[in-house]
Amino acid sequence: MTAPWAESSRPLEGYFLEDFAVDRVFRHATPRTVTPGDASLYIALTGARAPLHCSEVLARSMGYRACPVDDLLVFNIAFGKTVPDISYNAIANLGYADVRFREPVYAGDTLSCESRVIGVKENSNGKSGVVYVSSTAVNQHGTEVLGWDRWVMVARREGATAPATVLPPLADEVAASDFHVPRFLQPAALDPEFTGSSRLWDDYAPGDVIDHPGGMTIEESDHMLATRLYQNTARIHFDAHLAQGNQFKRRLVYGGHVISLCRALSYDGLENAFAIAAIHGGAHANPTFAGDTIYCRHVVTAREAVPKRRDVGALRLRMLGVKNLDPRALPAVGEGEKHPAVVLDLDYSVLIPRRQNP
Amino acid sequence: MTAPWAESSRPLEGYFLEDFAVDRVFRHATPRTVTPGDASLYIALTGARAPLHCSEVLARSMGYRACPVDDLLVFNIAFGKTVPDISYNAIANLGYADVRFREPVYAGDTLSCESRVIGVKENSNGKSGVVYVSSTAVNQHGTEVLGWDRWVMVARREGATAPATVLPPLADEVAASDFHVPRFLQPAALDPEFTGSSRLWDDYAPGDVIDHPGGMTIEESDHMLATRLYQNTARIHFDAHLAQGNQFKRRLVYGGHVISLCRALSYDGLENAFAIAAIHGGAHANPTFAGDTIYCRHVVTAREAVPKRRDVGALRLRMLGVKNLDPRALPAVGEGEKHPAVVLDLDYSVLIPRRQNP
Amino acid sequence: MTAPWAESSRPLEGYFLEDFAVDRVFRHATPRTVTPGDASLYIALTGARAPLHCSEVLARSMGYRACPVDDLLVFNIAFGKTVPDISYNAIANLGYADVRFREPVYAGDTLSCESRVIGVKENSNGKSGVVYVSSTAVNQHGTEVLGWDRWVMVARREGATAPATVLPPLADEVAASDFHVPRFLQPAALDPEFTGSSRLWDDYAPGDVIDHPGGMTIEESDHMLATRLYQNTARIHFDAHLAQGNQFKRRLVYGGHVISLCRALSYDGLENAFAIAAIHGGAHANPTFAGDTIYCRHVVTAREAVPKRRDVGALRLRMLGVKNLDPRALPAVGEGEKHPAVVLDLDYSVLIPRRQNP
Repeated sequence: MTAPWAESSRPLEGYFLEDFAVDRVFRHATPRTVTPGDASLYIALTGARAPLHCSEVLARSMGYRACPVDDLLVFNIAFGKTVPDISYNAIANLGYADVRFREPVYAGDTLSCESRVIGVKENSNGKSGVVYVSSTAVNQHGTEVLGWDRWVMVARREGATAPATVLPPLADEVAASDFHVPRFLQPAALDPEFTGSSRLWDDYAPGDVIDHPGGMTIEESDHMLATRLYQNTARIHFDAHLAQGNQFKRRLVYGGHVISLCRALSYDGLENAFAIAAIHGGAHANPTFAGDTIYCRHVVTAREAVPKRRDVGALRLRMLGVKNLDPRALPAVGEGEKHPAVVLDLDYSVLIPRRQNP
Repeated sequence: MTAPWAESSRPLEGYFLEDFAVDRVFRHATPRTVTPGDASLYIALTGARAPLHCSEVLARSMGYRACPVDDLLVFNIAFGKTVPDISYNAIANLGYADVRFREPVYAGDTLSCESRVIGVKENSNGKSGVVYVSSTAVNQHGTEVLGWDRWVMVARREGATAPATVLPPLADEVAASDFHVPRFLQPAALDPEFTGSSRLWDDYAPGDVIDHPGGMTIEESDHMLATRLYQNTARIHFDAHLAQGNQFKRRLVYGGHVISLCRALSYDGLENAFAIAAIHGGAHANPTFAGDTIYCRHVVTAREAVPKRRDVGALRLRMLGVKNLDPRALPAVGEGEKHPAVVLDLDYSVLIPRRQNP
Repeated sequence: MTAPWAESSRPLEGYFLEDFAVDRVFRHATPRTVTPGDASLYIALTGARAPLHCSEVLARSMGYRACPVDDLLVFNIAFGKTVPDISYNAIANLGYADVRFREPVYAGDTLSCESRVIGVKENSNGKSGVVYVSSTAVNQHGTEVLGWDRWVMVARREGATAPATVLPPLADEVAASDFHVPRFLQPAALDPEFTGSSRLWDDYAPGDVIDHPGGMTIEESDHMLATRLYQNTARIHFDAHLAQGNQFKRRLVYGGHVISLCRALSYDGLENAFAIAAIHGGAHANPTFAGDTIYCRHVVTAREAVPKRRDVGALRLRMLGVKNLDPRALPAVGEGEKHPAVVLDLDYSVLIPRRQNP
């Protein structure tokens, strides 16, 4: 188009490597009021069954003022907001760190997101580079509900000069002492009759392997509906015509949808893990396409206490998203090791009630 | 997984024939607060157009305190809750009986379900058997909103001993005298301008055949979205990878979704049949797959009075779900008779206003 | 079916040419209360990102009492209501005129629609004709929220006599002086931080061409979910079995869904165009099928003042919906000219804040 653009306007073609100067702040467009409609769609898209997000009665008895919005729905909506600015021209999403789930989000809350550039490094090919951003989502009271770092490979415009290299410090993990556990929380209200399982924090041990029994085949409509719900605009998920020119010659499934599917599948075996406290790190190890069937394995890597609470603890988990292979047939996959069927490798912690021994 | 499971936990692999001792009660996990999001999705998934479930103004003028949730959305959500316990290892859903729709459900209500085993019978092959359960769904006040019996064929674990045979009494029908008709109901408010039809109870007669004009082609996404919305976890609906090993080599459409589609299609011809009173019995006569187009024929089998009311009556109907065949080309199908195009054969009763002759 | 139909009942097979006598009024069935669930689904189906429809906080700061429902969701729901009566037997939707968006619609409002026949003309082949209707949608207070004219080609029953020809006057345009601009509107609250763009009314000029960067591939489930959500019953969108007999041998995508997709795609470039004031005219120039990828070009055709307001103006736009072709590769398409890749050609006006020069 020929008309001039004000400087404060996002360019239609998105941002490129040279636009990501360290400390630049992007206030992402389209604040979003989360509604019961979003929550219903999330169930329909993922099959999520965690009762805290389904029953107002249970949520209140656990101390929440209503059903909190599923952590990963919050994550995917917040992440989606950042895409037009941060990863519209991303070649790859390289990793996550320091993802902290804080204040619960309720239907009616309005989420706003911003990102600050914390690092940048041009690739040796001179055509692209890695951009590191730290993002936050706040509610209408300005209270942070989610914070996360991520890094993406972004294309450089031809002839542009990349910013000077700054490599940010990245956290290896979120310490259990930093987990947000609401003071009001009454974990004992999560009765086995609501979850179908009496297996609590005490019953899991490092090394436990859980191959979840369900599998979910992804159709093109399914992942596009989800990704549009999150208002994520990355063209690779939606535009089959354009995708004919990429290396896969087809649309890719948004990785956040795969995380959501794995979390939903893992309900059978982790029924009482009612909240995600943090994602320490993770990567989308292989692409997922429509037609793939997603399965999930969890490995318990640690059992952690949460400060000042004896009624709730944390489990540190490794989530392996597996495609087109019964996870029981998946060999042990070492840390940092790759396997062609593994599409997702996530290191995260959940909150789960502890057994009370009176 | 290696860790021990408490006795009150549902096994990851679900329950098998030998677990269904008569009188065992299953309190099903994941109570569910129904929301306007669920109602919108139900319209988008089925094309339902009954105005009582669409217009708050009309619902109030009929005496309801808000739009009641569509009967079949309630049924499918309640049924879905029972699947992880009752039919996760079902080989076939054999039949329904004594399905009674009671107190209306409104957005905001929280549904909880339980099932009691009322019968069991091992098959002569010794590898499976039939389990009979009676299930109920109650709202947050403990009021029953739905009750139903069903029987399913369930696999036996190798080497396990099946329970002793108990054959339960099964109702042939729900008597019209037992239909739940809300005292507050003002059926006359269902004006023809809202439904597009002035055909009431008085205008139908036993033997009437209605071949509804619409058809609905089912895509994989459609039935999977619906079945996930109902939190029904039966793998046969979702897992194309696993389904390669079944006799059909593909996913099956959840039968409850077919009932919903037929009910929605039948709006053109049964516009004033505003509620389902009871399902007397029924069976999924043939499997439905993605790609199939569903049509519907209704046969009026009886016109029944409802006790103490002259302004509303009941029609007993036979619903035939037909696939890939214009129902006008379907011959008469006798009771108990099968036809390869008929996927659904349901005997049920609806409530419909009676003409007031002053 | 054999039973008699009252005169006030819509015939099962819909209406035909000879039923459309001038001045006949159709009160369309199924009044509909719009809910937050509908709004969420609309986002999931289209990828709409306009912040006025997403953020309750922003909507209130702009003077609305809550998020107004997206104009095109209102249009598609209202249009859908008219289909069973007006276009169930339509051979083609020929055009729109005088589409006026009036009072905002909020979640909780109940929409009712009616249409009056304003013209009719038999085709020279004697088998069909053109029916012109003027339709309105009102809320529960009887306030008009939308009015529009359209004309469709409808089949005649064999042997029936078509009504005498009446050609209605059709408006070429809605005058800017007639645009509904709420008195309460505070357009300055639409801060660039919410939309990602500071480009306002002042920054666009007639002749500007905007080729929007996104593309959206349509799956069968996507358009069927949308069209069912709108309770549009035209069989051509849903019934693949029946569609085998049409000239395309497949289902067609409902044209209103294509308008919605184009509006959503055009957010990148028209970020501050927060409302549609009117659609002056338009046509679906070519059919759209599942598998097609939709792109959008806008041409600014006029910049118009709105009476009594210096803080908000109107842009008159030509929306070209393009399929399977990067719009940057589309040549200039003259007014009234056709191009095989252009599926939609719409002449409409949007409201957009003006720059305040103190």
